[in-house]
Amino acid sequence: MSRMALVLAYDGTNYRGFQFQPPAYGPTVQGEIERVWQKLFHETVRLIPAGRTDAGVHAAGQVVSLNTEASIPACKLPKALNSLLPRDIRVLRAERAAADFNARRDARWKRYDYFIDNARIPDVFARLYRLHEPAPLAAAEMQRAAVLFQGKRDFRAFAAAGGAARCFIRTLYHCRVVVAGELIQIICVGDGFLYKMVRIIAGTLISVGKGKMTPSAAAAALAAGRREGAGMTALARGLTLTHVEYGLQAPSALFADLAPNEWEKF
Amino acid sequence: MSRMALVLAYDGTNYRGFQFQPPAYGPTVQGEIERVWQKLFHETVRLIPAGRTDAGVHAAGQVVSLNTEASIPACKLPKALNSLLPRDIRVLRAERAAADFNARRDARWKRYDYFIDNARIPDVFARLYRLHEPAPLAAAEMQRAAVLFQGKRDFRAFAAAGGAARCFIRTLYHCRVVVAGELIQIICVGDGFLYKMVRIIAGTLISVGKGKMTPSAAAAALAAGRREGAGMTALARGLTLTHVEYGLQAPSALFADLAPNEWEKF
Repeated sequence: MSRMALVLAYDGTNYRGFQFQPPAYGPTVQGEIERVWQKLFHETVRLIPAGRTDAGVHAAGQVVSLNTEASIPACKLPKALNSLLPRDIRVLRAERAAADFNARRDARWKRYDYFIDNARIPDVFARLYRLHEPAPLAAAEMQRAAVLFQGKRDFRAFAAAGGAARCFIRTLYHCRVVVAGELIQIICVGDGFLYKMVRIIAGTLISVGKGKMTPSAAAAALAAGRREGAGMTALARGLTLTHVEYGLQAPSALFADLAPNEWEKF
Repeated sequence: MSRMALVLAYDGTNYRGFQFQPPAYGPTVQGEIERVWQKLFHETVRLIPAGRTDAGVHAAGQVVSLNTEASIPACKLPKALNSLLPRDIRVLRAERAAADFNARRDARWKRYDYFIDNARIPDVFARLYRLHEPAPLAAAEMQRAAVLFQGKRDFRAFAAAGGAARCFIRTLYHCRVVVAGELIQIICVGDGFLYKMVRIIAGTLISVGKGKMTPSAAAAALAAGRREGAGMTALARGLTLTHVEYGLQAPSALFADLAPNEWEKF
């Protein structure tokens, strides 16, 4: 028996989320991979993901761990699995891991990106991967609010009911709004995320962008710790789990344009 | 009765092509727009497209003309149509046109782009809009062959059976291969295209990229005028009708990096 890590990309559009559910509820990413594994290696495995993405949420760099007796070289696994997986799920990499490696517990930080198409008419080719918001958004205001969310704090105001967390303290290393033409991208990097947290951050920043809430009111809503004070939960479709870090790369390495002392406070 | 022009973008994945077919064959882009028009204006219209894209082919700048008695201001048409169209078809612009405007006949040139994902593992988010070719392609060889296809010539070797054309002479103003990382883009600009011509050009260039055909052999196959001498018809999914020009913009305006004399010979 040995521990294995897989790096995955998937288009979440057609899935009821990452986590296995009985087939009557529709396909799941976990269900597809475990089914293909069974077919290839006649072995039942259970995947542990770094982040349990919800229905409709995408991943460009999800990581899962599993136990296997299969003797296939790790470097041959992606091709073998991809040959049987649906085209909207790809195994990007596979590695033998330490016997105690756990993709969820050992993640040092994760990065999620929320994409907003702020054009009057949405880009048809990106429609599955972006929220379309035709009302003009004030991105500079959104960015002013986003930085106020950064830090180690109680994020219960940004957690949807139904999550399993008992502790609501998380460190949001980075929350930033980047604009490229009519595309608005919200980048969230943290040591952990509560249930639907990034989508609530996105919904709150959209309220700010529309002028319905000031940046300081958004910060106050977070501090007050009541879900009702924050914005709506933005649609799943705009969200992608971009990266999970286990190694030594600091979250700040992604954002070399930030002064180092901006990181020291965390 | 007045003549109207619409500019359209669509994801062709779920359509049996642009041209109307009886619903039993599956949905078409033309069928969807004519159905929505009927619903909005209680009027039966017939669209004439600049290019009849095949099943699975996409458009970022298709143009259609039609006759209508509807009195709605053209500027309000996109929003009205888009509110009822499926999300994979968008009307980008509408304009009243001259009474004799015909989107097909009056097009001065059209641009098609063929996209190839040459990564070992395909990008899941672009999988519907690119051909995945895992074998390494020699893009420089492809580019050497592409320029040999340019000019005013008989393109019957690059025409699939089943087209309506009787004359096979077309001017290919521009045929170029552009590389960005693992994305290979084939740009074709011409005054008209034969049935599946761009996909046969793409298939022939892929043969060249794999080393199965030299650039000069590809040029000789075109000159010989026999379909068997050219490459396969590449999958529809990689092809997008990008732009149709009716005005004064020269094809070369898209490619300012080309010396003017490269255009003078056409």
